[in-house]
Amino acid sequence: MEKLFIIKIGGNVIDNEENLSFFLGDFSKIEGKKILVHGGGKIATKIGEQLGLQPSYINGRRITDDNTIDLVTMVYGGLVNKKIVAQLQAKNCNAIGLTGADANIIPAKKRPVKEVNFGWVGDINSETLNIKYLELFIENSIIPVFAALTHDSKGHILNTNADTIASTLAVALSKKYQVRLMYCFEKKGVLENIEDDNSVIRLIDKEKYRQLLQENKLFEGIIPKLDNAFDAINTGVKEVLIGDAKDLLQNITTETVGSLIK
Amino acid sequence: MEKLFIIKIGGNVIDNEENLSFFLGDFSKIEGKKILVHGGGKIATKIGEQLGLQPSYINGRRITDDNTIDLVTMVYGGLVNKKIVAQLQAKNCNAIGLTGADANIIPAKKRPVKEVNFGWVGDINSETLNIKYLELFIENSIIPVFAALTHDSKGHILNTNADTIASTLAVALSKKYQVRLMYCFEKKGVLENIEDDNSVIRLIDKEKYRQLLQENKLFEGIIPKLDNAFDAINTGVKEVLIGDAKDLLQNITTETVGSLIK
Repeated sequence: MEKLFIIKIGGNVIDNEENLSFFLGDFSKIEGKKILVHGGGKIATKIGEQLGLQPSYINGRRITDDNTIDLVTMVYGGLVNKKIVAQLQAKNCNAIGLTGADANIIPAKKRPVKEVNFGWVGDINSETLNIKYLELFIENSIIPVFAALTHDSKGHILNTNADTIASTLAVALSKKYQVRLMYCFEKKGVLENIEDDNSVIRLIDKEKYRQLLQENKLFEGIIPKLDNAFDAINTGVKEVLIGDAKDLLQNITTETVGSLIK
Repeated sequence: MEKLFIIKIGGNVIDNEENLSFFLGDFSKIEGKKILVHGGGKIATKIGEQLGLQPSYINGRRITDDNTIDLVTMVYGGLVNKKIVAQLQAKNCNAIGLTGADANIIPAKKRPVKEVNFGWVGDINSETLNIKYLELFIENSIIPVFAALTHDSKGHILNTNADTIASTLAVALSKKYQVRLMYCFEKKGVLENIEDDNSVIRLIDKEKYRQLLQENKLFEGIIPKLDNAFDAINTGVKEVLIGDAKDLLQNITTETVGSLIK
């Protein structure tokens, strides 16, 4: 099977123009098949504030109300996504900007209202993706760039976690490709000691993960990422790497850096 | 050659949710190959005002400064475009939202600075479009939905007139398809008497256009639309219709309504 890189970037890359430009240079140099998935970063919050929107939270969880979904549709799906596409085009990388609504690639289910009504949030499943069109793009050397948005097939855009989109795409595409999923974030990898940037755990298997969870060593933000990573590994994805964008992309053909999840 | 409908809508359809939903219902029912091109309507102005942006004009021409291009990238390329796509998906119309930067379909040249610096405005040419990917989508039953944005191949999104995008796509695609270009606007067609909504001129050929211009009868807004229409007709497009969205779409297979440019 042919290799496919699925690379997810977040706020630490997107929020800084220089970082983003540098990253896109590295991304455009990756040979072979690749997909980029991006979150929105702080710019949505900033524009939301300028528009006088108050972010709403229930139990510390962000709620996607009517104004918020319009905001993220504009900012993630328009401003951030199209700027990335234009910059990749300038680097001879034939990108296409997508949400899950486009070509119906990622239909989602609006999260059911239980104790909390999360609003316009979409849950997704690798079984229900329409990868036919995604393959059409990939096989024709078009590079998909996904904003973290899906849709409910009833006319509404939904907000979906970018890590989850990346891992769900990875699982669905692992039937056709040998997928390496790469989560780029602000650290060099998963840290044994959160205070020490050099304490990267090079290899995390299930045993090690169980142990880390028991020892309560992991900082909270990394746990959903690792859960996504293991979901991906358990359902066909060859390997998941977590680490710094520059490290991961510049060593893409030579060695694995960051934390390797297997 | 197979038929292809290219339909352009503007503010009068986009600005009103009910109109838009009604239009998208009609659009989704058109059988066969089709492309939608949309402008942005008043919503960009409204969000611009909320963000405290002042629209800038020189000699009555709108200038696309840094803030404005970000605004229209968000609003046209994100909010409006993705809402349309999600609504079309709900009507079983497999839409994909695009700007000219996506898959490099519409590369543009930033308008040269002469007396006026128009800012981030792109001029386009049917000869330089990359219709290969557009054909790939069309032939695979994906329905392209274009926001009126292009790019300069140097990393910048550019603002391009939606009528011009529609006519330029029509010309480029007329090599492969029998193209009917349809400009939907707020009138029933080109009016002989601007005060009388029933004075639609059914057929406008070059002779008639020359005469109308001489008699100074046309309202100013229609002239660029007619110029675009004749450019399209002169370079391969089979026919151009100008009129009301509902009229044009609901009579698409039976008769031509509105003003027919030949």
